[in-house]
Amino acid sequence: MNQYVIIVAGGSGSRMNSDVPKQYMEANRLPIIVHTIKRFFEYDKNVHVICCVHANYSDYAEGLMQKYFPYAKIKIVLGGETRFHSVKNGLAVIKDDNSLVAIHDAARPLVSKETIKRCFVSAQENNSGVPVIKVSESIRSVDGKKSIAINRDNYRIVQTPQCFKTDVLQKAFEVEYKNSFTDDATVFENAGHVVNLVEGNIENIKITLPSDILIAEALLKK
Amino acid sequence: MNQYVIIVAGGSGSRMNSDVPKQYMEANRLPIIVHTIKRFFEYDKNVHVICCVHANYSDYAEGLMQKYFPYAKIKIVLGGETRFHSVKNGLAVIKDDNSLVAIHDAARPLVSKETIKRCFVSAQENNSGVPVIKVSESIRSVDGKKSIAINRDNYRIVQTPQCFKTDVLQKAFEVEYKNSFTDDATVFENAGHVVNLVEGNIENIKITLPSDILIAEALLKK
Repeated sequence: MNQYVIIVAGGSGSRMNSDVPKQYMEANRLPIIVHTIKRFFEYDKNVHVICCVHANYSDYAEGLMQKYFPYAKIKIVLGGETRFHSVKNGLAVIKDDNSLVAIHDAARPLVSKETIKRCFVSAQENNSGVPVIKVSESIRSVDGKKSIAINRDNYRIVQTPQCFKTDVLQKAFEVEYKNSFTDDATVFENAGHVVNLVEGNIENIKITLPSDILIAEALLKK
Repeated sequence: MNQYVIIVAGGSGSRMNSDVPKQYMEANRLPIIVHTIKRFFEYDKNVHVICCVHANYSDYAEGLMQKYFPYAKIKIVLGGETRFHSVKNGLAVIKDDNSLVAIHDAARPLVSKETIKRCFVSAQENNSGVPVIKVSESIRSVDGKKSIAINRDNYRIVQTPQCFKTDVLQKAFEVEYKNSFTDDATVFENAGHVVNLVEGNIENIKITLPSDILIAEALLKK
């Protein structure tokens, strides 16, 4: 089965107090999105990469791909208004019914090969594979000024890549956008399917704040 | 009002694959517990520090305190079977009814002065101040193999220092230990009090895994 990965890089970087979206910022002298794509090629050099990028950055992203992956066939696709719309645009270019697709945040350069593998294997066997990790700190549920301690063992933090059978996911995306679509698993679930969870890796953080770049640099050096 | 801080360092380091408990490991050439205590003295040099340590490390901890804080009066107290018992031992040495006490993990060297202040101010005004941060990633609640997406806006991650009026917390600790006592807020709550949440700081991570040391080093250098 062919394997595709849609790298979601549609963000505009507003949370980083920076003109450059976070996925294009450098960690250890390499743009974060380049680290991220390298992880997938390290997992399997035949994986098909599709990058969903903001229109303002499509030339820039194209240039990066030519510089760092000159021999790879990486498709650049324009992102949409939300993550849902970006992924939908990415899915539209896959004309391969018998395949698997991973949806991955460009700003998660620390995903392990093992996590990627677990997600694809689960997608092949169960239609979906979504990586999660345990919650390592105490959590409370809040309601206005009130809050109560809850049992963290009953919760998981969700990561990417979220992997699916391509045709099943494409069908699930043939719906109107809802605010509850916070990731791809929620769209898949909305179509009546059961999400299969697999183990993620704890280093697989999403770079959101400036301090996350420092953290990523430290972990990438390891 | 006098301010006390109980530094909880009773752990034995079993999760770090190390003979040395995590709070004694070094980050940027200084033991983590020393970074942690420095943060409280930077907040207020008159704060009274009580360290709850494992019996095997009491001499070692005593030596560290003499080396790094030669002029400070830091009390070393033996830790107990669980965090609850350690904190109870720490609370027992405070003979000062009109005071505030912060309970802080030795393995959180990145707490900010602002977080410490918010916690103490809240404890003075509302009997308690517990620092929390928003959940930045998607979360799911799990029940066996089933899971559902939940709205992360309704949850908070709990940090330390957890601050309280000393006499109120001492009373709350006069109970039998329960498994649900995962932190000090849950003990306080068990006594019928309402926990007041304040904003923590996002860098205030708890060092649990070896990779957390690298993260802490990067953030401490900032």
